[in-house]
Amino acid sequence: MEQAILLVQCPDQKGIVAKLSSFVLAHDANIVSSYQYSTDPDGGRFFMRVKFVFDEDRYSRQTIEEGIQMLADGLDARWRIHYESRMMRMAIAVSRLDHCLADLLYRVHSGELRVEIPLVVSNHEDAREQVENHGIPFHYLPVTMETRPEQEKRFLELIHDSSDFLVLARYMQVLSEDFLNGYGKDVINIHHSFLPSFAGANPYRQAYDRGVKIIGATAHFATTALDEGPIIDQAVGRVTHKDKVESLKAKGRDLEKQALASAIRMYLEHRVIRDENKTIILG
Amino acid sequence: MEQAILLVQCPDQKGIVAKLSSFVLAHDANIVSSYQYSTDPDGGRFFMRVKFVFDEDRYSRQTIEEGIQMLADGLDARWRIHYESRMMRMAIAVSRLDHCLADLLYRVHSGELRVEIPLVVSNHEDAREQVENHGIPFHYLPVTMETRPEQEKRFLELIHDSSDFLVLARYMQVLSEDFLNGYGKDVINIHHSFLPSFAGANPYRQAYDRGVKIIGATAHFATTALDEGPIIDQAVGRVTHKDKVESLKAKGRDLEKQALASAIRMYLEHRVIRDENKTIILG
Amino acid sequence: MEQAILLVQCPDQKGIVAKLSSFVLAHDANIVSSYQYSTDPDGGRFFMRVKFVFDEDRYSRQTIEEGIQMLADGLDARWRIHYESRMMRMAIAVSRLDHCLADLLYRVHSGELRVEIPLVVSNHEDAREQVENHGIPFHYLPVTMETRPEQEKRFLELIHDSSDFLVLARYMQVLSEDFLNGYGKDVINIHHSFLPSFAGANPYRQAYDRGVKIIGATAHFATTALDEGPIIDQAVGRVTHKDKVESLKAKGRDLEKQALASAIRMYLEHRVIRDENKTIILG
Amino acid sequence: MEQAILLVQCPDQKGIVAKLSSFVLAHDANIVSSYQYSTDPDGGRFFMRVKFVFDEDRYSRQTIEEGIQMLADGLDARWRIHYESRMMRMAIAVSRLDHCLADLLYRVHSGELRVEIPLVVSNHEDAREQVENHGIPFHYLPVTMETRPEQEKRFLELIHDSSDFLVLARYMQVLSEDFLNGYGKDVINIHHSFLPSFAGANPYRQAYDRGVKIIGATAHFATTALDEGPIIDQAVGRVTHKDKVESLKAKGRDLEKQALASAIRMYLEHRVIRDENKTIILG
Repeated sequence: MEQAILLVQCPDQKGIVAKLSSFVLAHDANIVSSYQYSTDPDGGRFFMRVKFVFDEDRYSRQTIEEGIQMLADGLDARWRIHYESRMMRMAIAVSRLDHCLADLLYRVHSGELRVEIPLVVSNHEDAREQVENHGIPFHYLPVTMETRPEQEKRFLELIHDSSDFLVLARYMQVLSEDFLNGYGKDVINIHHSFLPSFAGANPYRQAYDRGVKIIGATAHFATTALDEGPIIDQAVGRVTHKDKVESLKAKGRDLEKQALASAIRMYLEHRVIRDENKTIILG
Repeated sequence: MEQAILLVQCPDQKGIVAKLSSFVLAHDANIVSSYQYSTDPDGGRFFMRVKFVFDEDRYSRQTIEEGIQMLADGLDARWRIHYESRMMRMAIAVSRLDHCLADLLYRVHSGELRVEIPLVVSNHEDAREQVENHGIPFHYLPVTMETRPEQEKRFLELIHDSSDFLVLARYMQVLSEDFLNGYGKDVINIHHSFLPSFAGANPYRQAYDRGVKIIGATAHFATTALDEGPIIDQAVGRVTHKDKVESLKAKGRDLEKQALASAIRMYLEHRVIRDENKTIILG
Repeated sequence: MEQAILLVQCPDQKGIVAKLSSFVLAHDANIVSSYQYSTDPDGGRFFMRVKFVFDEDRYSRQTIEEGIQMLADGLDARWRIHYESRMMRMAIAVSRLDHCLADLLYRVHSGELRVEIPLVVSNHEDAREQVENHGIPFHYLPVTMETRPEQEKRFLELIHDSSDFLVLARYMQVLSEDFLNGYGKDVINIHHSFLPSFAGANPYRQAYDRGVKIIGATAHFATTALDEGPIIDQAVGRVTHKDKVESLKAKGRDLEKQALASAIRMYLEHRVIRDENKTIILG
Repeated sequence: MEQAILLVQCPDQKGIVAKLSSFVLAHDANIVSSYQYSTDPDGGRFFMRVKFVFDEDRYSRQTIEEGIQMLADGLDARWRIHYESRMMRMAIAVSRLDHCLADLLYRVHSGELRVEIPLVVSNHEDAREQVENHGIPFHYLPVTMETRPEQEKRFLELIHDSSDFLVLARYMQVLSEDFLNGYGKDVINIHHSFLPSFAGANPYRQAYDRGVKIIGATAHFATTALDEGPIIDQAVGRVTHKDKVESLKAKGRDLEKQALASAIRMYLEHRVIRDENKTIILG
């Protein structure tokens, strides 16, 4: 038995659920869970996530996928399918601050996040030992203004085929449009503020200067518009006038770990769908 | 056009979603949203909430309901249907502390909660003016140990036919099994603690004595087992060693209002299903 | 016996606490609580709040205050004293949306907030009945672009002597520099977003468009720089992709009530001190 | 210059703050921060934390401490003093689940928690590599019903002189009264529930069975009454009907790390004072 997750998005129309669930039934599969969402009952965009179990000995993946494609053609739908037996591969990039990296390594190591880490890339050597202690290849790719194009080319070669998505776990370099387009897969970034407050550099300094009473962290898809990609999750915590920039950073680290781990967990469950500049979290 | 919400629960089995969504499609209705949940993929209990729009000129409620009954017979299912055009009726009982009552009256008055309040019952006169200012009948039903059976009988007569559910908005009397069975509809209570901590009397005093750093409030279905009914929602807030019993009560009032309003909002959207001693919140 | 709260701020220097506490002791007064804060141990700004009980039959307010003034002169300090027997007077301004007003009226009525409300001003008639039901004078002051100077003049006359501070409980008019300077006392505003995110008009629409996963509300001192005054408190709550602008508004109303009530509670306890563009919450 | 933190507790009485601050001033020391709390203005228990900087070349520790002792004798006070130049030593005990241990090791390693870890004790071998990678001695002390007295004796020998306090970071053995008395220093435990709910074994199973909508974790001083020691901090998080025992455990791990790290951070700042069965967090 194989378990699969099917994600479908299409213009809203009558009968989608019936067609999809009948299709699943016709292949003698059992729906484990299903969730649908429509942006607007009167003709919006429709999104669906169906988790089902089927017997691979009777219906091959190819058969299933061809059937879905036929259905999708009739619905003007885009779709993706994920088989639980295949583990996702998450590349990680990091700079000096390694708290998010350490948190992810622990969660993967302990089995909380079910994902493979094919490699970690960094523009500093600091994290090497920690990464290699986990038996994960570490690639040191220093970068300067001048060497950026070359460095990104090497970075891209390393992750292009070896990973399904990339996590920027406090990687403090802006990635070029060429890099993002060249990768062509999802890139998840953690920004150390409660966006859209304090985009850009030194958000904890900005938060300190403004005197906010709550700080936050934001996990979002990286796009070519810096700090403006679709938000996946956010975490917040209270601070006081006693907090200086340093203690804001310390409190913020916990929020960053929390928001990033939550976003990755939902992403690995295939619950996160981009809808223009927003995300929809299915189920 | 009429909008309806169908709630179904039955033993998990293959094809439920397909059958229900095909049924909806066959009546030319459009599914606005649907959510299903199964307690256990391997033969657990299945729950589904489907919101759909149908043309009452073409298919009468009776036709729809007969069709559902036939389906349900085949699935060994229990079901309920709610039509949006029919407004729910919420009876309220209160004792002296009126913060939850005032909060509910405001939310209903401002249109945030779409529900009718046919009457308010109290064992004290305190809330009369506030209730009558909203044009809602107020019934004063004092109670003593001796008069309890008589008072409950009168209480029951007042609400039995006039309401769809009862909210105990800090009504500080224990309702008898006879009363609850006689009413036979849902009763939602707000308990002023983070259950199961501090069940019973004087929970803020208990919280103070234990020195907890967080207090809470719990909205739950009232059952004959005091403070042990299925939990619908909970709210929590931080406190410190500086909080005495009085300030815990003040902070707690906000949590009580929040948990109760949230529970009622979900209940009015027909998202709350009891599953033995727990609740399932659909979607 | 009278209870007093003394607030002192001055350049940090050795011996301040010793001098102040010795002064209190010399007047045979008992310190109920004291809290000090220094922005920087190496020569920052020093803030102190001391609550003490003294015997008015032995030491008059004048005696106490003259003594404090002498101390303050030596410390280059500014100070304020509040006597608990004197109730603060809070003027309220409101426009159409009355949830914050209703919440404040209830909290004052129930004794949770110990403050007098001398009057409510509005540029709409909507809240009149609610306010007058509480026996509080209601003043209808409509305003247009043309009549603004005249309206503000009348507004100022009404509150200048009758109130100690003004709360803008969703009063949707920008107050002129002349008005703020003419009043010369604290003005507390509730902004319906998590500042500095979504300053200006329609913050819930802005939040919806950005797709945030958490929304907020901010209580701050109103200054001539719109939405940029010192923040007193903030409240936040989770939202999802399912929330449209209307439900963001509904969820936001609870956050606005919470942040505003919390800010006013701390203000009435004389815990809130402005420090340039920030606030310090003492104790 | 040396920085010191003085903690004082005594029966409330007039002039304590004046005496203490004058004492500090007399030694030409500068008060960096001071915070006092009285359980009851009318003759309760008084607690004070004063952080001050003094010149060790002019006043020795012995001089300071003798002076404090004289003051304390007059106030019937108990007191402790901590010098910032001396680092606290935290022994850790752990069983199989190592998430709290890993979290603490990271926070200490990264400098967020300023404390020395002289050793880690465990009744399992699992954590050895992780601990030794940090250059910290790891002691494997297996235990059975029969060997408990012997194991505790060895445990006590290891930590008695080498540590200032002990953290039970998911050490799943009940410590005997003899052990606790023999150690005579503070023991901080993390319990994986929101106490007093779900004391004892398998709290996540208990939470699942009860159907709560919020779970928690509690850091408290371990006493001979299991799970009933004074609470230092608590953390909470939302869960849903979809959470099984396993996912409650996963969500709970983050709460445990959060509550324990917060409690230790406050403890290392000497802000935590026991007051009978509660804690007071100073400042």
